[in-house]
Amino acid sequence: MIVVTSLDPAIAARLRRDEAGLVAAVVQDDATGDVLMLGWMDDEAVHRTLTTGRVTFWSRSRREYWRKGDTSGHTQHVRSVAIDCDGDALLVRVQQVGAACHTGERTCFLAGGELPAVVGAAPVEGEGAA
Amino acid sequence: MIVVTSLDPAIAARLRRDEAGLVAAVVQDDATGDVLMLGWMDDEAVHRTLTTGRVTFWSRSRREYWRKGDTSGHTQHVRSVAIDCDGDALLVRVQQVGAACHTGERTCFLAGGELPAVVGAAPVEGEGAA
Repeated sequence: MIVVTSLDPAIAARLRRDEAGLVAAVVQDDATGDVLMLGWMDDEAVHRTLTTGRVTFWSRSRREYWRKGDTSGHTQHVRSVAIDCDGDALLVRVQQVGAACHTGERTCFLAGGELPAVVGAAPVEGEGAA
Repeated sequence: MIVVTSLDPAIAARLRRDEAGLVAAVVQDDATGDVLMLGWMDDEAVHRTLTTGRVTFWSRSRREYWRKGDTSGHTQHVRSVAIDCDGDALLVRVQQVGAACHTGERTCFLAGGELPAVVGAAPVEGEGAA
């Protein structure tokens, strides 16, 4: 995939992309801390997200740029963007208008729902050392 | 990559994996709501995470399973696991012991740091309609 992008080369140099040229973007509600969704970005989507105040993804299924909310009205307004230690993920904190998920749920993880999981806990210090 | 896994077929059927057979796992601190890191899981890593109380990833760089904390002591204890609407991401809420990032920072996004971003905001209703 060859995309002409204006992404700052210093930022582009920090991205560690997958085979499809994408990094993962975790979107978190800046007001509530809720994780709203996970999307994918190529360099140009990162550039648009950093420079326009609106979150833009690359849609893997539709193979097109997707500025969140253009169809649904459920826009995401950028509050901050951080990159992780190895450059394969971004954390985008947003002001979310309406539901983040296309299903109408507030988050995509509420839409998918919980999986049955064994709950773990760290050992309490002092216990088990009798 | 052929992996024999005991992952519940009903859960496996919901996963939408990338070309490498992986889904993204967002790890969130269950106590603070902070997004700690993003890791990758194949079916077997999902199975181990759901059934052992401890978070297990697939390391893309080392090409091996990686039970968080086995080397560092900074274990992640599973509190809940949710799947997103299209099955390509999991949200794993954890009790985090110590720093989540291998750099010693509390989160991998603090380690990578903020990128310069234009801040956006939703229009305030009633404004601009003069």
